[in-house]
Amino acid sequence: MGSLATENQTIKVAAINGSLRESSFNGGLIRSAIEIAKESIPGMEIEYVDISTLPLMNIDLGVREQAPPAVKAFGETILKADCILFASPEYNYSVSAPLKNALDWVSIPPVNVWAGKPAAIVSASGGSGGARAQYHLRQIGVYLDLHFINKPEFFLNAFQPPQKFDGNGDLIDAEAKERLKDVLVALREFTLRLEK
Amino acid sequence: MGSLATENQTIKVAAINGSLRESSFNGGLIRSAIEIAKESIPGMEIEYVDISTLPLMNIDLGVREQAPPAVKAFGETILKADCILFASPEYNYSVSAPLKNALDWVSIPPVNVWAGKPAAIVSASGGSGGARAQYHLRQIGVYLDLHFINKPEFFLNAFQPPQKFDGNGDLIDAEAKERLKDVLVALREFTLRLEK
Amino acid sequence: MGSLATENQTIKVAAINGSLRESSFNGGLIRSAIEIAKESIPGMEIEYVDISTLPLMNIDLGVREQAPPAVKAFGETILKADCILFASPEYNYSVSAPLKNALDWVSIPPVNVWAGKPAAIVSASGGSGGARAQYHLRQIGVYLDLHFINKPEFFLNAFQPPQKFDGNGDLIDAEAKERLKDVLVALREFTLRLEK
Amino acid sequence: MGSLATENQTIKVAAINGSLRESSFNGGLIRSAIEIAKESIPGMEIEYVDISTLPLMNIDLGVREQAPPAVKAFGETILKADCILFASPEYNYSVSAPLKNALDWVSIPPVNVWAGKPAAIVSASGGSGGARAQYHLRQIGVYLDLHFINKPEFFLNAFQPPQKFDGNGDLIDAEAKERLKDVLVALREFTLRLEK
Repeated sequence: MGSLATENQTIKVAAINGSLRESSFNGGLIRSAIEIAKESIPGMEIEYVDISTLPLMNIDLGVREQAPPAVKAFGETILKADCILFASPEYNYSVSAPLKNALDWVSIPPVNVWAGKPAAIVSASGGSGGARAQYHLRQIGVYLDLHFINKPEFFLNAFQPPQKFDGNGDLIDAEAKERLKDVLVALREFTLRLEK
Repeated sequence: MGSLATENQTIKVAAINGSLRESSFNGGLIRSAIEIAKESIPGMEIEYVDISTLPLMNIDLGVREQAPPAVKAFGETILKADCILFASPEYNYSVSAPLKNALDWVSIPPVNVWAGKPAAIVSASGGSGGARAQYHLRQIGVYLDLHFINKPEFFLNAFQPPQKFDGNGDLIDAEAKERLKDVLVALREFTLRLEK
Repeated sequence: MGSLATENQTIKVAAINGSLRESSFNGGLIRSAIEIAKESIPGMEIEYVDISTLPLMNIDLGVREQAPPAVKAFGETILKADCILFASPEYNYSVSAPLKNALDWVSIPPVNVWAGKPAAIVSASGGSGGARAQYHLRQIGVYLDLHFINKPEFFLNAFQPPQKFDGNGDLIDAEAKERLKDVLVALREFTLRLEK
Repeated sequence: MGSLATENQTIKVAAINGSLRESSFNGGLIRSAIEIAKESIPGMEIEYVDISTLPLMNIDLGVREQAPPAVKAFGETILKADCILFASPEYNYSVSAPLKNALDWVSIPPVNVWAGKPAAIVSASGGSGGARAQYHLRQIGVYLDLHFINKPEFFLNAFQPPQKFDGNGDLIDAEAKERLKDVLVALREFTLRLEK
């Protein structure tokens, strides 16, 4: 593939929200990312991928290939994506159970669907804005064979003034949107760089 | 409380298996621990606490105190325990989703049921026997305010000869049983030491 | 030992600064802690222990018991302490080399001088105030057999207004001093609780 | 740059040993890697870079650009390398002080010499063969902006039979040499893939 073709190529991003809350801040980050990509990042399409319908992981089912349809559909969606955008809340200093559940379900035979994919993580949380969860996710990613961008990192303390989200969980902070855009641009560049 | 009374005191241990597999090796570790305590550790009762019926964590439900009955019952069981024994598999270099799910559900208001409890972790897994998952669990425990014993640590490579488990997932290795007993004794001593 | 005697007991704390900088903020935290203990925490004496004179760790020297005099003196000081206060900067998302060096030197035979000691960590740093370094230190402490307090944790973003330190690196922020005092009180209580 | 040119390109690897021991096993891994590259990996040159002469990190010196000559020379060597091979022992569940010291010294202004470089880690150690140290190094690498290969990982339990090293610390185990070669090949491929 020539370099010109590569630069014009459209990158398909699967975006996953680790929180199942209705007005989740991390859901707000994804909605904002989708909008930002549409408006100002040519060659990047972000698709929100729901993980709330996956049952609790039981490896017996997976091994026996009796995984529920929701698991199979989720795996196929990830397989088709060029890279992943994780919006990860921090629960008790680590990733959420629903996010770990989604990661685990489609990592086992017949195929680890994450293998080799570039990825980025964004977090809205209290305290240090999700940092502890992100480093756990990065360690998980070593086994899954995800290639995370290093910089910029995106941590957002959702409770620090000025107000970051409105009542629907939509991101309303201009500076945070700018930083979010920087993450997306870096993810696109890294994805193109890793493609053979 | 006098020291003599303390030494004779019976410690109630809640034992949690992070794997939902039917013939889970980590379930085998708990069954073995229950037997060892009964037979050779006076003053220690281990109760297996099932986490497989908890729904996937959604903080909306918890905050609104509409947590399903299974969550409430689980929380009450943990509250009554003197200390915790985690049998934690390692999935993708971290704890399993069902374990994180159980930890998270009963950590939120009205009360973090884990606060101040002593705990120990045992793991049967491939590779380094669950070490990576245990250090993630220890970091989670900082926020939950669990006090883990430091030593002995218990990692068991379930696939290294000689055979460690039979077809039902029951622990059959004498050396591993001895090490498991050492963990239980250390957990009992640390629990007594931390009581005021 | 009776409980009354225990409560009146004076706890000796060894305080270690992971930064060798002349006007180190973490040195400022230790100076402030020493002052706070003197003025308002009866039964707690904090001694600053210098680690800047230890040579770079080479296990050959240690194993052969040819450790330089500075190493031996450092080890004896730690052995005599009831508990440890670490002031840990964060360099590149982990603990500093001088701190790791000090930890390693006196952890090897003939004796791990850290074994069984209660400990607390405080950090002044940029970004999330040293959190990443603290979780690395906690993992290191599992092997060293340190018992860290869980709460309160102390992270101080040294560069966020209002000004936290003066030009000499002395802590001048009243709210941070109050939080620092809470750490010291919790360390004293945990130390008494862990004593047999 | 055309793909043919890229594939024929010679990759320069800087190899760093975190242990200062004379007959260090990790030093043995590097000597073996150098030999393997020479004999059977066209387009890969590995140079051993000594870190034992660097003084203990003091950021005052660095910031003031009064860094000792050994630090400056080390930084220039790393800058010229295409990628990095870390041979990291595990001391107390983390990286060694000398390795952290080397990483920190040349990460500060005027320039972080590690930025953007691909890297791999190999470890010979007891227990789980250095795994805990490697995940700490990976987290450090996020800030340094190192791009680690995910697979294969290389952990070697130096004390498990059959004998892995001879009395000089030279690697003598054929299976380990084969695995070491796989790491080097993966590092070369990842380095080429990341080059623009």
